Amino acid sequence: MNPASFFARGLSRRVLLSALAATPALTEALRATPAAAQTSVDPLPSWNDGATKTSIADFVARVTTRGGADFVPPEQRIATFDNDGTLWCEQPMPVQAAFILERTRALAPQNPDWKIRQPFKAALDGDMKTLAASGEKGLTQLVAATHAGMTTDEFARIVSEWLGAARDQRFRKPYTELIYRPMLELLAYLRANGFKTFIVSGGGIEFMRPWSDKIYGIPPEQVVGSSIKTRFAMRDGRPELFRLPEVNFIDDKVGKPLGINQHIGRRPIAAFGNSDGDLQMLQWTTMAGDSVRLGLIVHHTDAEREYAYDRQSQVGKLDKALDAAALNRWTVVDMKRDWNRVFPFET
Amino acid sequence: MNPASFFARGLSRRVLLSALAATPALTEALRATPAAAQTSVDPLPSWNDGATKTSIADFVARVTTRGGADFVPPEQRIATFDNDGTLWCEQPMPVQAAFILERTRALAPQNPDWKIRQPFKAALDGDMKTLAASGEKGLTQLVAATHAGMTTDEFARIVSEWLGAARDQRFRKPYTELIYRPMLELLAYLRANGFKTFIVSGGGIEFMRPWSDKIYGIPPEQVVGSSIKTRFAMRDGRPELFRLPEVNFIDDKVGKPLGINQHIGRRPIAAFGNSDGDLQMLQWTTMAGDSVRLGLIVHHTDAEREYAYDRQSQVGKLDKALDAAALNRWTVVDMKRDWNRVFPFET
Repeated sequence: MNPASFFARGLSRRVLLSALAATPALTEALRATPAAAQTSVDPLPSWNDGATKTSIADFVARVTTRGGADFVPPEQRIATFDNDGTLWCEQPMPVQAAFILERTRALAPQNPDWKIRQPFKAALDGDMKTLAASGEKGLTQLVAATHAGMTTDEFARIVSEWLGAARDQRFRKPYTELIYRPMLELLAYLRANGFKTFIVSGGGIEFMRPWSDKIYGIPPEQVVGSSIKTRFAMRDGRPELFRLPEVNFIDDKVGKPLGINQHIGRRPIAAFGNSDGDLQMLQWTTMAGDSVRLGLIVHHTDAEREYAYDRQSQVGKLDKALDAAALNRWTVVDMKRDWNRVFPFET
Repeated sequence: MNPASFFARGLSRRVLLSALAATPALTEALRATPAAAQTSVDPLPSWNDGATKTSIADFVARVTTRGGADFVPPEQRIATFDNDGTLWCEQPMPVQAAFILERTRALAPQNPDWKIRQPFKAALDGDMKTLAASGEKGLTQLVAATHAGMTTDEFARIVSEWLGAARDQRFRKPYTELIYRPMLELLAYLRANGFKTFIVSGGGIEFMRPWSDKIYGIPPEQVVGSSIKTRFAMRDGRPELFRLPEVNFIDDKVGKPLGINQHIGRRPIAAFGNSDGDLQMLQWTTMAGDSVRLGLIVHHTDAEREYAYDRQSQVGKLDKALDAAALNRWTVVDMKRDWNRVFPFET
């Protein structure tokens, strides 16, 4: 799910007000280090026994069994993960959308004209109807105002500081704690079995890199995402990259296989997603090649512990990809049934 | 050095004729596995003792000494290498330029109009003057004709087959054997000391990936280069990426820091190049950040064993970057003085 489609489909008033009310207090980011695969220790303790867990374990056993028909050499064990809704919570709005709204508010005093200029006025007023109506053009203007006009180093600092202070309004937690514990276990389990794990997200590549290593164990060079253009220039004798208000690449839908090919240069053997934005990544991963493949979709079915949404959702719509899952035998995680814990902070 | 500037500056007739006369016979690609850094074994045996070798060893010692003032954690030990002229021979023309000319010739029977259409006619006739005059526009047409119109998998196969058969005319070797043994040792030495090694080249990213792991030990996901656009589509129920005749990104000069940031997402602490095309990568790497950095330039000074060229060269021009090296205390390798062997096949 990328912020563009999110905004285009509309934000609820409640959502914006919640985001704007976030309490600014610094917090330590969560350290995500679940136990790696060990003999006799269950590497996936947050996963209930059943067909879903078995399909993952079977796949890993097949590709790692030396001499077996499905053995895959370690260097080809590439696994790609969507981020919003697959590794962390994307409801009630993607975290990057909350960043855009709060950042717009933070910059408003230096931009007095925003009070009378759309889409800024709508963002500041919490006028979600107007904001939604501004569509992709409106989003592009908000992204330009909040994501461009600084160096890459400066932007990384802005993101880190914001994430340290921002809070989700339902759970009253930093966004970096609203990550799925079962998926952290899965990341560690795959890495313990020789996999290289990548994020392939519609979200901004530079928005994720400042914290992806700390919370997921995925280093910056293994993050693929959407980007704006940059320009190289010297400033005070120091080489800098300046972020420009111009889209470079949208890593969503058909963009995901392109991003994978551009950054990784080989076809993954496992891919993990949760929405129609991940459909082509899952097709690209599973519908070709000689070796066995794993496609997995996280189906949000737990309104009590997290959220329940799929075919009709404005954020993270899961419709075509759910049909394709049945057709292509992708594993579908029923969050309510398959996960005994959702977030790391649950006891 | 990227093929665009090469062609724009002109090819000699001798060069083209040589390239076209290459004998088509399959060969095994060279396995590049020099000894890694071991206690009491010189990890850089092809490097003569002296200031150059010392500057490399000192840098590695400083960043890897735990508790030392210059210690750099392993995950931040990113090293980027130019390819043409830095890891393999780029004279008398870049290997990819030879590929373009030979591929044009191979495709000529299916394109009878090329006999009367520029720049194809010039490429087929060996009319280097006309080819050079066609400039970047002409090159773009030749790249479109030879690099686009197939899937990514098909292109990788075409490159591999061509490299297996093609021969350099001076040394009568496959191009994959015209790699610098001292640089292979350096790659292995850095990796043995916790570095992640990347190629950052003006050459085509998809032209390098089919063989970079085999000859350099650099996997596809650690190759950054120039690219054309691709399109995702299903063909006979199989997802494919089709290569389009449209430039996506030029990873040369100011493009190198951009490519590094886009793919790697952190600033290297060591960068290795040989021409003005590497100037900004070396600036980006060495002129910022708190930790110690290494910038190194391979200066081609050995006409007998390889080639001697710098400020006036049409291929791999080294002028501004040589001045900048003195100013910024980059290490300059004098190939004749500093390397006791150049190619792996030398005894």
